Amino acid sequence: MDITERSTQRFENGTDVMNELFPEEVQVGMRYIKEISPDLWNMIVSFGFGELYAKNTLTMAQREYVTLTALITQGAFDQLRPHLYASLRVGLTQQEITEIIIQCTGYAGFPKAVHAMGIAGEVFKNYEAENAESK
Amino acid sequence: MDITERSTQRFENGTDVMNELFPEEVQVGMRYIKEISPDLWNMIVSFGFGELYAKNTLTMAQREYVTLTALITQGAFDQLRPHLYASLRVGLTQQEITEIIIQCTGYAGFPKAVHAMGIAGEVFKNYEAENAESK
Amino acid sequence: MDITERSTQRFENGTDVMNELFPEEVQVGMRYIKEISPDLWNMIVSFGFGELYAKNTLTMAQREYVTLTALITQGAFDQLRPHLYASLRVGLTQQEITEIIIQCTGYAGFPKAVHAMGIAGEVFKNYEAENAESK
Amino acid sequence: MDITERSTQRFENGTDVMNELFPEEVQVGMRYIKEISPDLWNMIVSFGFGELYAKNTLTMAQREYVTLTALITQGAFDQLRPHLYASLRVGLTQQEITEIIIQCTGYAGFPKAVHAMGIAGEVFKNYEAENAESK
Amino acid sequence: MDITERSTQRFENGTDVMNELFPEEVQVGMRYIKEISPDLWNMIVSFGFGELYAKNTLTMAQREYVTLTALITQGAFDQLRPHLYASLRVGLTQQEITEIIIQCTGYAGFPKAVHAMGIAGEVFKNYEAENAESK
Amino acid sequence: MDITERSTQRFENGTDVMNELFPEEVQVGMRYIKEISPDLWNMIVSFGFGELYAKNTLTMAQREYVTLTALITQGAFDQLRPHLYASLRVGLTQQEITEIIIQCTGYAGFPKAVHAMGIAGEVFKNYEAENAESK
Repeated sequence: MDITERSTQRFENGTDVMNELFPEEVQVGMRYIKEISPDLWNMIVSFGFGELYAKNTLTMAQREYVTLTALITQGAFDQLRPHLYASLRVGLTQQEITEIIIQCTGYAGFPKAVHAMGIAGEVFKNYEAENAESK
Repeated sequence: MDITERSTQRFENGTDVMNELFPEEVQVGMRYIKEISPDLWNMIVSFGFGELYAKNTLTMAQREYVTLTALITQGAFDQLRPHLYASLRVGLTQQEITEIIIQCTGYAGFPKAVHAMGIAGEVFKNYEAENAESK
Repeated sequence: MDITERSTQRFENGTDVMNELFPEEVQVGMRYIKEISPDLWNMIVSFGFGELYAKNTLTMAQREYVTLTALITQGAFDQLRPHLYASLRVGLTQQEITEIIIQCTGYAGFPKAVHAMGIAGEVFKNYEAENAESK
Repeated sequence: MDITERSTQRFENGTDVMNELFPEEVQVGMRYIKEISPDLWNMIVSFGFGELYAKNTLTMAQREYVTLTALITQGAFDQLRPHLYASLRVGLTQQEITEIIIQCTGYAGFPKAVHAMGIAGEVFKNYEAENAESK
Repeated sequence: MDITERSTQRFENGTDVMNELFPEEVQVGMRYIKEISPDLWNMIVSFGFGELYAKNTLTMAQREYVTLTALITQGAFDQLRPHLYASLRVGLTQQEITEIIIQCTGYAGFPKAVHAMGIAGEVFKNYEAENAESK
Repeated sequence: MDITERSTQRFENGTDVMNELFPEEVQVGMRYIKEISPDLWNMIVSFGFGELYAKNTLTMAQREYVTLTALITQGAFDQLRPHLYASLRVGLTQQEITEIIIQCTGYAGFPKAVHAMGIAGEVFKNYEAENAESK
C-alpha cells in the first residue's frame, strides 16, 4: 500500500464535496492555489473537504452555518463569497443567511456584520441572475 | 409613552429567551453584570436576547450554531461555557457540538478547537450528572 | 402600544445621531444595507446609533476615540473611513487622530497602525478639499 | 556618545510615566518581565511608556481611552487590569470606563464587553477599598 | 483497502513527531481530548503532526518559529506552554525564544508579547529544573 | 546631548536595515506615511527597524519567519506583500515561504493561509521577472 494510493481516496471524497458545494466556475478560480503550491491544494481537497466536510455527522447546510460564522468573525471576507454561493447551493435560504449575519452583530460586532451583509447582497443578486438565465 | 414603558416589552422578551437558554444557577452567575452596570445588563437582555435571539426566523438551535462558532473563532472561552449548556438545553446533541468544534479546526485553527473541546468535555460531564440527579 | 410605535422613537434618536456624525453622501453609501436587510439596518440605526451613541454619558468625540481604536485593532478598515470623517465632524483634530493611530502601534502592532494611517491621510486630504470648496 | 547613555533619557521618561500611571505594587508585579528579558523590559519602558505615552500631544486620560479599547477588542484581559487602575489614577471616572466598555459592545461584540465589565467591577471595588484605607 | 488501514500510517508518523516534540507527561495531558472526541484526536495526530510537521521541508526548529508566532499573535496562550517545551527540545535556545517574542511586539503589540514572556519565564525555569534532576 | 542627536543613530540603523530588506521602489511606496505622520515614520524606522530588526541576536531570515507568520495570523495582507519580497531578499527560498504558509493552516486556519498563498504566488512571479530583467 503506497502513499499515492492512500491519498487518492480522500482526494476523491474531497472532489465530490467540492462539486456539491461550488459550481465549476468558482472551482476554476480556486485552482490557482494548485499552481503555486500543489501541497496546499492537496490539503484543501483531502483534509478540508475530504475529511472535515465529508463526515456525514452534520449536513452540508449545518457545516455552512459554522463556516460562514467563522469567516465573518475573523474578517476573512475574500473566502466568504464562495461560501455564500455554496450555502445557497446546499439549501440555505437568503433569509437564513441574513439571520446568521445579524446574529453575528452581537458576537463579532457590527463592523464585520455590515461588511458581510454587503457581500451577501452582491452574491444574492448574482445567484438569482444565474438561476434565471439557466431556466 | 415613556422610555421605561417601551423598554419593558423587549426586556420581557429577553427574559423569556434567557429562561429558555440558561438554567437559574447560570443566570445567577450572569447577574453580577447588573450590579456593575445596569445599562450593559439592560442591553444584554433587551437587545442581545430580546431582539437578536427573540426573532423567530431561526430556531434557538440554529442560533447556537452561530454563537458557538463565533465564540470559538474569537477565543472567547469564558462565554463558551454557558452557551454550551444552552446548546444542550435547546436540543443540540453532544455529537453536533463536537462536530461544530471539529469544523472550526479548518477555519479557526487547531489551538482554538482544542481549547473549546476541553471545555465541552467538562460541560458534557456536568450536564449528564445534573440530569441524572434530577431524575 | 404596538411594536412599530416603540421602534419609532429609538430610530429617530439614531437618525439624529447619524446626521450629526455623517454627511448626507456618506449616509447614502450606507443605505445599501437597508435594501439587503431592513432588519440589520433597523438595528444599526436603533441600537447602534439610537442607543449606544445617543447616551449622553460620553461626548461624540469621546465615543469616536473608542470606535476608531476598536476598528483599527480588529482591522475593520472599510468601516474606518466613514468614522474618520465622523471624527473630524465631531471635533477631533487631525493631530488627535494621528496620535490615536500611533498609540495603537504599541497595543495592536505596527501593521494595523500603518494601514490606518494611510487611510487617514486620504480622508484628511478629501475633508480639506470639501471644506475649501464649501466656502 | 555611547548607547547606554542614549538609552538613559528615554528610560527615565518612561519611568516617570509609569510612576504616574501605576502604583508601586502594580509596578512590582510588572517587573518579573525584567528578570526574564531585560531587553523586552527596556522596550516597554523606553519605547512603550518613554516614547508613546510621553508624547504630550494627548492627555494620559485620552491615551487610556485608546489603551482600554485596544485591550478589550483583542481580548487581552490580563493587561486590562493594570490599565483599569491606571485609568482611574489619571482621572477617568467609573462611569467613563463603563461607557467605554459599553461602546465596545457594538464594535467588538458582547462577549468581550461582558468579560471586561466583570474585571472592571473587581478593580472598582479594590480601588475604592484602597482609597478608603489611605484616608 | 479499508479506512482504518489507511489512517494507520499517517497516525504513526504523527505519533513519531509528537514523541520528538513532547515529553511523555505533556502527551498525557493532551490525551484528554481523545476521551471527548476520538475524531479530533485523530485529526491532531494524523493531520496536524502526521502531515504538517512530518513534512521534511522545514526543520522542527523552523516549524516551531511559525507555531510560537501564530500562537502569540492570536493569543492562544494555553497552547503556547507545550510548544515552548517542544521548542527547547528541538533545539531553540532560550535567547531565540525571547527574541521571537520580542519581534512579536512590533507585529502583534506589546500586550501579547508581555503575556507570552511571562509564560516563557515559567517554562524556562521548569525545563532547567527537570534537566538538572535528570542528570 | 540633545534629543535630535540621539534619534539620529537609531534612525540610521533602521535605514540600513530597510535598505537590506526592501528595494528602493518598495521603500518609495512606504514613504507616504512620512507625509501624513513624520512621528509614525520615525517610530517605524527607529524602533521597528532600528531596534527590533537591528538586534543581531536573530538573522534577518529568522526574523522574517516571525514577521510573515504574525502578518498571516492577523490577516494583515497589505503588509504581507513587502515582507514577502524582503524574505526572498534575505535568503528565504520559495519553498520555505510556502511551507511557512502551509504550517499556518493548522494554527491560523485555511482561509488566511489560502489568501496568503495567492499573494505569495504573485510576488514569486514578479520577483523572478525582475531578477531575470536585471541580468
